[in-house]
Formats: sequence, structure tokens, C-alpha cells
Amino acid sequence: MSFNRKKAEEIAANICRNDDERSLIPSFVEVCSFLSDFPDELSWRTNKDNPVKPSVETDSGLSTLANRYFEGYRRSDFPVEPSTVPDEMVSVIMEKAYGYTTAQCEQIKLEHQHAMCSENCVGNLLERYLDSKLRDSHWSWCCGEFVKAIDFLGRNEKNEWIALQIKNRDNSENSSSSAIRDGTRIQKWFRSFSKDTIKGRPSFTNWAKLPELMQGYDLSEAEFKNFVSQYITAEKAKR
Amino acid sequence: MSFNRKKAEEIAANICRNDDERSLIPSFVEVCSFLSDFPDELSWRTNKDNPVKPSVETDSGLSTLANRYFEGYRRSDFPVEPSTVPDEMVSVIMEKAYGYTTAQCEQIKLEHQHAMCSENCVGNLLERYLDSKLRDSHWSWCCGEFVKAIDFLGRNEKNEWIALQIKNRDNSENSSSSAIRDGTRIQKWFRSFSKDTIKGRPSFTNWAKLPELMQGYDLSEAEFKNFVSQYITAEKAKR
Repeated sequence: MSFNRKKAEEIAANICRNDDERSLIPSFVEVCSFLSDFPDELSWRTNKDNPVKPSVETDSGLSTLANRYFEGYRRSDFPVEPSTVPDEMVSVIMEKAYGYTTAQCEQIKLEHQHAMCSENCVGNLLERYLDSKLRDSHWSWCCGEFVKAIDFLGRNEKNEWIALQIKNRDNSENSSSSAIRDGTRIQKWFRSFSKDTIKGRPSFTNWAKLPELMQGYDLSEAEFKNFVSQYITAEKAKR
Repeated sequence: MSFNRKKAEEIAANICRNDDERSLIPSFVEVCSFLSDFPDELSWRTNKDNPVKPSVETDSGLSTLANRYFEGYRRSDFPVEPSTVPDEMVSVIMEKAYGYTTAQCEQIKLEHQHAMCSENCVGNLLERYLDSKLRDSHWSWCCGEFVKAIDFLGRNEKNEWIALQIKNRDNSENSSSSAIRDGTRIQKWFRSFSKDTIKGRPSFTNWAKLPELMQGYDLSEAEFKNFVSQYITAEKAKR
């Protein structure tokens, strides 16, 4: 057995529901091709019911991966209501430390939860924005979160793999990134600075420092903002 | 060399600035006594300037530990203003997802930061509250955060060490707790439930389930609330 691009394409095509999804098939195939070169980079939790990690060399493995890939794509990144109950002691501290009234604290409790949920979406929306601009390029989105610590895959002019790790902020938690061997380079990029430490910095965003091979695709904060605005509006309309 | 309780007492007494601090000396000595039994439980970051971990068997080691202990006690747990800059994209999501106006989002940005800072204090305030009620008991507060994953130390009726790990919520991050050997038991307790999953639960707090040896000291949510209220008011007055 070995990895068969044609087979991966066919299996993905059977899962796709519309032209938009079908336009992601080349990315899915590239991701599988990468996992065929580096099987250890597959991030997959096994359990009693599913004890075996899917292999890109079998039909059933490709089918499992394609399902995960397109389910990830279909999943909404609209902010989800939190399932946690706010800690009442936070309101006590807010009242005494900042002078908010009890009524204000009640209001803040809700808004604070909305802010937290919104914060949790930004990273995923950033990947969706990049995919929307890069889908027709040589970059492939690692949708579905089954490639270890890698968000986009590309190749350089020597046809070597280039792996890209995206973070929303310079202080985002580090993913447990494994060093990839044999000619694969991991490039890292974060979108925004969390601290205003550099005097005179014109912007808190980092689009000017995109990795070289990501440049030339018109990626910008203003466009990201438009994308987020449109995405959230569209998702809200579905509810 | 061996650990000398008298010496630890003297060194701590030289550092103390008032009667309140002096009433913590027995706790400090107990903590050192524990570290003398279990030197590996010392949590201490070394660096080029300070390459050696302090030992409870030397005067200089005791002095270093006493300074850390009482500096920890003196440090204010009033909420600190965050040094991070809010991510503007969160406001974009808030506007589109929840219908907040731009002006409301500006307001929420500040209140959300206040709420986060306040949340970050609760765990430390919980330790301070427990210390305030337990200082005269056989429990000793591991102030200064130099004992691995342990917040309070006590002994059972057989004079064996009992270590207590306190968390504010059932979903607080796990500290990298090391299993302690040789007759030391780690008991764990959390103050509050983060989820409303148990129908009919009368309370979101867990004071009714305190470890057996912590019972009988009148510890309660109502008293904790009073403590927090008074502590924050007093700290605010110092500013």
C-alpha cells in the first residue's frame, strides 16, 4: 500500500456537499500527502472504540480523515455561549476595587462572558480568513486539527515542505510543536502584539512581517476585519 | 548540618515588621521543617546569578526562604491593571454577534479587563482567607509559593504530614503536582463549581466538603465574602 492522490481526491469528493467545499479538495490531498511523508505528524486521539490511527494509505483511513477535515470546515466559529457559571466573588471584588454598583456588576458579568467567547473565536477566524485568501494558491489549510502544530502547508521553490504555525497574538499559548525533520521548515507568524512596549510602533498588528511565501496575497488587518464582520453576520443569520 | 527550628524562628523574627507578621513565624518554621523532611518539594528557580537552591539547613538558606515567605505575605492581592492591549477584533465580533454598539464595545473592553484582573485575584484571596482563620491552628500556610503544589501543611493525629492543595474552581488549571512519598497525603479541595450540571444543587460552592481536618474552623462562603470585601477595601485605601 502507498498513498494515492487520486484515491484521496475521490474519497473527499464523495463527502463534499457543494462547490465551496469541493474547492478545498486539493488542500485536503496535500495535507494527506504531507502525512504520507511524515506519518508521525498526525495528531489523533485513539480510544477503546477507535484504537487505530487512520492511515493515508488505506481507503478507510482517508475516509476518516476527510470526514474530520470537512466537519472542521463546516463547524461554525460563531461565539458559543459559555457553559460555566460566573464566580460571584468576582463581582464582590469589582464593586470594592472599581466602585461598580451591584447592578453594573450583573451587567458586566454577562458582557464579560460575551467578550471571553468572542476572544476564543479570533484564532479560528484568522485561519478561515487566511484560507479564504490562499485557497487558490500553493498553500494548503490543515483544517480539522489533525496535523500536529501546523496550520498551513506549502512548498518552496525546491519543492520542500514549508509548514506554517499561526497564532493570533504573541502571547498565545504555544502548541506542543514537534520539531519536524528532514527538510521541513516550520515558520511561525502571529497576527497581533499583546503589549505596547515598543514606543512609536505604528500598529499592534504584524501583517507587515508575514513569512516570505505568504506575501503577495493582499493579506491585511483591514481585510481580516471585513472577513470577520461578514462571517459573523452570516453565521448569525443562520441561527 | 541539620535543620534547626530555633534558628529558623530567629531568622524569621529578624525579618518581621509587626505582630501580625510575627504570628506567621510558626507557620514558616513548619514549612521549613517539611522541606527538611522532603527537600525535593522545594520549588525554586535557579539562574546564573543564583545558581544554588536555598537549604533549610543553612542560615543563608533560611534567610532566603524567610524573605520570600514574608515578601509573599506583604504583596498586595488588589487587582492589578493589565499590561496587555485588548484585541480590537474582539469588539468587531461583539458588535456583529451580540448587537453591541461601538460605544458599548469600548466600555465593555475596559470592564472586561477589570473582570479578568478581578478573577485573577480570587485564588490568592482564598488562601489569605483560609490563613486568617487557620493561623492559630495546627495548619501552616505555604506562603511565598516555594513548596511544590501545596498550599497548606498540617499533621494528622499520628503526626504524619498532611498536605492540602486548594483551588478556587473545579476547572482551575492543575498545578504540576508531584506525588509525595513516605506517608505524606495530599488532600485536594476546590471552593466552587464552574458548571451547573447537578440539578437541584443548592449552592455553587463546596464548603460543605472541606477535608476533615479543615472542618470546625467556621469556614464558609459568607465569611469568605466578608473577608474579600474588607481586604479589597483596605488595600484600595492604601493606594
